Amino acid sequence: MNIILLSGGSGKRLWPLSNDIRSKQFIKLFKKDDDSYESMVQRVYRQITTVDPDAKVTIATSKTQVSAIRNQLGEKVDICIEPCRRDTFPAIALAALYLYDVLKVSLDEAVAICPADPFVENSYYEAVGKLVNLATSNNANLTLMGIEPTYPSEKYGYIIPESDENVSKVLEFKEKPDTVTAEKYISQGALWNAGVFAFKLGYIVNKAHELIDFTDYYDLLNKYETLTKISFDYAVVENENNIQVMRYSGEWKDVGTWNMMSEVMTDDTIGNVVLDNECSNTQVINELDIPILCMGCKDMVIAASSDGILVCDKERSDYMKSYVEKFDGDVMFAEKSWGIYNVIDIQPGAMTVKIALQAGSNMKYHSHELRDEVWTIVSGNGTVVINGEKKKVSAGDIINIARGTKHTIFADTDMNIIEVQVGTEIDKFDKKVFNNDF
Amino acid sequence: MNIILLSGGSGKRLWPLSNDIRSKQFIKLFKKDDDSYESMVQRVYRQITTVDPDAKVTIATSKTQVSAIRNQLGEKVDICIEPCRRDTFPAIALAALYLYDVLKVSLDEAVAICPADPFVENSYYEAVGKLVNLATSNNANLTLMGIEPTYPSEKYGYIIPESDENVSKVLEFKEKPDTVTAEKYISQGALWNAGVFAFKLGYIVNKAHELIDFTDYYDLLNKYETLTKISFDYAVVENENNIQVMRYSGEWKDVGTWNMMSEVMTDDTIGNVVLDNECSNTQVINELDIPILCMGCKDMVIAASSDGILVCDKERSDYMKSYVEKFDGDVMFAEKSWGIYNVIDIQPGAMTVKIALQAGSNMKYHSHELRDEVWTIVSGNGTVVINGEKKKVSAGDIINIARGTKHTIFADTDMNIIEVQVGTEIDKFDKKVFNNDF
Repeated sequence: MNIILLSGGSGKRLWPLSNDIRSKQFIKLFKKDDDSYESMVQRVYRQITTVDPDAKVTIATSKTQVSAIRNQLGEKVDICIEPCRRDTFPAIALAALYLYDVLKVSLDEAVAICPADPFVENSYYEAVGKLVNLATSNNANLTLMGIEPTYPSEKYGYIIPESDENVSKVLEFKEKPDTVTAEKYISQGALWNAGVFAFKLGYIVNKAHELIDFTDYYDLLNKYETLTKISFDYAVVENENNIQVMRYSGEWKDVGTWNMMSEVMTDDTIGNVVLDNECSNTQVINELDIPILCMGCKDMVIAASSDGILVCDKERSDYMKSYVEKFDGDVMFAEKSWGIYNVIDIQPGAMTVKIALQAGSNMKYHSHELRDEVWTIVSGNGTVVINGEKKKVSAGDIINIARGTKHTIFADTDMNIIEVQVGTEIDKFDKKVFNNDF
Repeated sequence: MNIILLSGGSGKRLWPLSNDIRSKQFIKLFKKDDDSYESMVQRVYRQITTVDPDAKVTIATSKTQVSAIRNQLGEKVDICIEPCRRDTFPAIALAALYLYDVLKVSLDEAVAICPADPFVENSYYEAVGKLVNLATSNNANLTLMGIEPTYPSEKYGYIIPESDENVSKVLEFKEKPDTVTAEKYISQGALWNAGVFAFKLGYIVNKAHELIDFTDYYDLLNKYETLTKISFDYAVVENENNIQVMRYSGEWKDVGTWNMMSEVMTDDTIGNVVLDNECSNTQVINELDIPILCMGCKDMVIAASSDGILVCDKERSDYMKSYVEKFDGDVMFAEKSWGIYNVIDIQPGAMTVKIALQAGSNMKYHSHELRDEVWTIVSGNGTVVINGEKKKVSAGDIINIARGTKHTIFADTDMNIIEVQVGTEIDKFDKKVFNNDF
């Protein structure tokens, strides 16, 4: 099957593990059978390909997430990059055209759209497969998944089906209600709208041409910034009469806050953490090298990364966003296509960065105007290029990179480097990138 | 007056701010009028010299604390260094002989002994002055301070005075009692023994010669390691009949745990900390550069340093020690005589250190056998010496120090340096120190 995963949102709600460039779906919180951890997007990809080894997964996302996706999933997925945020209809239209014009998917093939970050069982993706089959059999223009509600939530939109059959026409859509109204909907057989649906590719390509003036994917990409922001619900769903919904009653969790995330963690602690025996219902995630000691903590979630430290009563985690928005610090941790970039010290005139390069990867060939850099190779082997000159390097080697010097490194093995940046102005935008023909 | 401050104990109880080389009395937790912070030992020194600007303060301590004392108090105090821990009688004997043989204090002069870490008002040191006056007037061989108890504590020893007069002969000493016994003592007019006492210097010098075979301070220092461990109470106080006690009723707090320390903090937060409005009775000290966000925390103390992060219910802080003892990590933060040494990253084969040198200071001239070092000068000016060769350095300069190379740095201004150590074995004991004649 063809699946488009919508991978959105920069994350304040799971601060300090999510930040402007690491959305929550890239945080490695889920334990695998081999005791290593995987992120939500890795988990979702693994689940999809477990259910359907031939699934073709395309991730629709913004430029800032490309490095993290390549770091976590390699070249196994296609990526459709939105040049800027333009709400869900333009995003889905662009992804549909990407499938048609770039991946050469036929207009008759059915495609499913899913968010990249629900916490679900494998059976959810079996249901997505059925959704795709339903869309292929052409009974409706749009086929949605409706989640059987487990409580009268105020956080989700509701779908009112015509009948209580497994697959039914949709009677009506309802916006997020208050609890009392939600109870009423549920008594009428309503389902949660989880933003999962399938359609024949031609349906959305046609909708896109109806609503936007463009020729093909490349033209749409070029004029993307000029498109009106409009949601898929508003542009398509509300104007479409031929919609059906399929019930799904398996586990489904939208892990948007620490409170919800802590519910789905396999272990109470990740990283260097000690809980005393008076702690209860407390989860701790520590990405720092130093230990966290928790004594007598009740109903808390505690998370530490190089961006900051959160100590939070679970009930309060819904209210984090406004506090986190006040932290305007630079991002201290980033997954790059070549590995991990972790700021370990900032002081006036200097920034120190811990760099981990993956074997076989390389940085872009680049220079800085306003800062010198010193690389100390801590482990591994590779080749640095300084103003076109190549040099083999290994542990203990020191490379001085004066401002203006073009430089890059190719890692033969996994490599660790400490980079010290010195300059009166240290700014991520102080970077010129050059083509390399090494 | 002459005061000997006993500055003891490596600290697990105020972890992660105290560690094997930073005892609790060196943590800067107390706000001064100018909004900067001072440590307990700085506060105590300021209080003593406010009460008596001519006070001569000698700190009796171990070698590991000398750098921190010089860093925080400069050359304003004398330091009597115990070569190793040998309990309070040898420590006080050594300090007394130091006053006599090194500082040339007369045997007729009275001397007060105080712990370096009580949280008190200035009036406490006025009382210490009175204690010294009483000791001078020769009514008793030992004059103790007795704190008026505020509750039947199980944590202190009790002094039973003969009368309820302000100064009275001591009838009896009592070990730490249970609460019921403490109540009984208090109903008999008992006082807390806070370990504060005064005597004529000759008294202790004679006691030392009675109990230890030595000639003078230098001889005692040389044989210090061979001395029997014995407490001052056991060696002297219990065998002395001519003891008086003076009552003190001002504020006195023994801030040995985070629970007690949090009671005497001026502000609820120190450092980069945000508390939401659902936090209550919570104190947070953050020595890291990254922010701490606390939401809905009740009755907690939270402390973060480069050694670790503590999240602790206040009632549990009494039980920290056994948990902290399990952390066998290296000390990440140290105050040196020349400034601050702060480990910012450890990985296999490398350690990265943030160094702050004070203007006018210098490191010892030294070398390492098993590691290379790279210094990147971040700010300030100074002179490095590499194998005897001097070189002026300033921001942006990089100094490569291969293993075996003798090196040091003299700071002309305050300087900041990032030091990257690379080697298969990185060990604090890998250090040879050389005389320098620069």
